Formats: sequence, C-alpha cells, structure tokens
Amino acid sequence: MEEKGISQAVIGRLPRYFRYLGELKDEGVERVSSQELSGLMHVTASQIRQDFNNFGGFGQQGYGYNVEFLYEEIGKILGLNKTHHLIIIGAGNLGQALGNYMNFERRGFILKGMFDKNPALYGKKVREIEVQPMEKVEEFVRENDIDIAVLTIPKSSAVGVAEVLVANGIKAFWNFAHVDLNVPEGIQVENVHLSDSLMKLSYNLERYNQEQEKG
Amino acid sequence: MEEKGISQAVIGRLPRYFRYLGELKDEGVERVSSQELSGLMHVTASQIRQDFNNFGGFGQQGYGYNVEFLYEEIGKILGLNKTHHLIIIGAGNLGQALGNYMNFERRGFILKGMFDKNPALYGKKVREIEVQPMEKVEEFVRENDIDIAVLTIPKSSAVGVAEVLVANGIKAFWNFAHVDLNVPEGIQVENVHLSDSLMKLSYNLERYNQEQEKG
Repeated sequence: MEEKGISQAVIGRLPRYFRYLGELKDEGVERVSSQELSGLMHVTASQIRQDFNNFGGFGQQGYGYNVEFLYEEIGKILGLNKTHHLIIIGAGNLGQALGNYMNFERRGFILKGMFDKNPALYGKKVREIEVQPMEKVEEFVRENDIDIAVLTIPKSSAVGVAEVLVANGIKAFWNFAHVDLNVPEGIQVENVHLSDSLMKLSYNLERYNQEQEKG
Repeated sequence: MEEKGISQAVIGRLPRYFRYLGELKDEGVERVSSQELSGLMHVTASQIRQDFNNFGGFGQQGYGYNVEFLYEEIGKILGLNKTHHLIIIGAGNLGQALGNYMNFERRGFILKGMFDKNPALYGKKVREIEVQPMEKVEEFVRENDIDIAVLTIPKSSAVGVAEVLVANGIKAFWNFAHVDLNVPEGIQVENVHLSDSLMKLSYNLERYNQEQEKG
C-alpha cells in the first residue's frame, strides 16, 4: 500500500470515517457506497473516493464498500490494531476526564500511569490507576514502555516537562497545554488547544449575526 | 473591512495568531514583523501576510505590525470584544474542567449555568455555578439570554438535547459529544472530537515508526 506524502488534511478525516463506519458496522450494515457515506457525513462522494485512493481505494466493487473490511483497514492505517501505553501528566478535572474515558482503551490506548505535582492528588484513583508524584515519572516512563504522554498541565510547565519526557523515551504527545511544544524531529505532537476552538466558534457566531443584521 | 468568503482554514489560524500576539504583548513587545511571527509560529511569512490580507492587512508599515493593535483587531474579528453567555450540559469531569477554566471568562465567555440529568450532581458548585437538573434547562435558556451551549454528554443524548436547545434559542454549540450534530442552517457548531485527535496522533506515530524500520 502506497502512503507517501499523504496530507494531514486527509489523515485528519480518517478518524471520522472510522467513527461512521464503526456505527454502520454496529447497526449491521454490510455494504456502503461512497454516495451513502457522503450523505451521512456531509462530505462529497468524490472527496471520499479521493481520500480512499490514497490508500489503494479499498477495493470498491459492484455495490459500494464492504463496511467491516473498510473499518478494519482504516483502523490498521490509524495504528489501532496495536497497543499504545499512555501516561497522563496533570490529574486535575481534564486529566481525570481523559483517564476515565473507557473508549480510548477499546481502541488500544492503555492508561498506565497518572502524575501530578500536587500532593493532595497523590494516591487518588482514576479507574485502577493511582496518581503518583511527578518525581517518579522519569523512572516510570523508562521502565514501562510508555509511548504517549497526555499533557493536561499549565503552559508554564508543559515545555519543560515535555523535554524531560522526550529524554526518557516518550515518542508522542497529546498536548492540552495552551502552548506549542518545541520537540525534536521525529517526536509526534497533536495539540488540542480548547480555547482556539471556542474562539473559532465565536468568530462564526459573530459573522452570522453580522450578516443577519445587514439583512 | 472585507471578510467575504474567508475559508475556515484561515479562521482556524486566527486564534493561534491571537494567542501568540497576546504573549508578545504580555512580554512588552511593541512591534513584530511577519518574519519574526513566522519564526515563532512555524508558519511561513507569506502565509501570515496572505492570512492578514483577508482582513485588510492590518497596516504593516516600516518595521512590522503594531503588536497591541494587531492583537485588538484580531480579537474583534473573533468576537472577543463581546460577551457571550454559556451553559454547560453535562457536569462530569470534562464539564467541570471546562467550567473551571477561568481563561474563557477573560475572553468574554461567561458561564451562566450547568445542567446534568444525574441527581447526585445537583447542587454541586463549579466556581459560583450550581449544577441544575436537565428539566430546568429550557426555561433557563429562554430567560437568561444564553447563546452558546457546551455539550459534554454522551452521543446517545446529544442530538436530542441539541434539538431542544435550538428550539429555545441557542445559537451555537461547542460539541464534545462523539457525534456530528444535525442542526438547522444558521446554528454554529464547533466539534471537539477528542478521540479523533488521539487517532490522528496514533497514525503519525505509526507512520514514523514504519519509516524508521524501513531505514
């Protein structure tokens, strides 16, 4: 399968395809055409075919795609057939929310540890995982084959913590801190800047209101 | 100022400009060139100028842009000079995390109410706001001039709740439920599908590992 130079825009759409195909599969649907997917997802059918062609097209023949096959294949492309070990840095409300989210585990993202620098949180359990002091994170990462760190800490400490984690073997960051991390090449970062997304909503709301006022 | 047909990609970058300019302003920087912004933000200088030209260019003269002016102008474009009234539907960990996030308030997003269908949460306070039963949400929205609803509820109830809220006057949704809402035209939706973003990280990690293995 050729996957050279696939744009992050295409990659960004894969999880959404995966989500819709999972729902169709759960509903017992066996085949789906690009037209039907298009109607469900509000994406053009030609966009869907173009996206899928990046991965060899997934063999659409006769009537549409085989839902289960397509779901499995996109899951493999997303690396969901592998197990990933996660730690969460920052055990506040957001860290706890993410730690409690069972669906991540279903997709192979296994929470192995939670860390915080606030002693009041030490020993608190999020599912079966006890919050540990930050001083223990380096050794833990080295000894437990952790590949992903989730950062739910303030931006003032995120950059420094990320450096320490990279030095101890972390390969990927799911970053909720409101700062762009500066990591060495080869280290993957996915930023979730929540306030950016709220501002985008505010922009669209404002623009619509202005258009309405103009008539 | 002409803002016709500005792409969602450009709009998606505005909050990030706003964030960086806010930091420069806090550091007391008075002027910044597109080259300097480019170096900070890892975006090309020509992309920055092109983005800004959508809004009239913000009068770059001589040495760079006036940081405070640019910050204020982008803030206005994002509607951050207005006050928005928010409610949060779903008072679990994620709802509480968002409710506790003071920075939203600084940007004019004022939390007015929190609602949940779990009686164990009724009366719980998130900052000064008490969690109320879902039965009270319709009246509350109508009487308190609420424009944005934050949905941190399971996907099984999100679509139905969104319909009820629209019928009572909600204009915009910040949606954390793992489902794409189907709302009437003119209602704004900004989706934060957290697992989609984790899967994208997984893809990039997987792809990098495969490239390394190939040498």
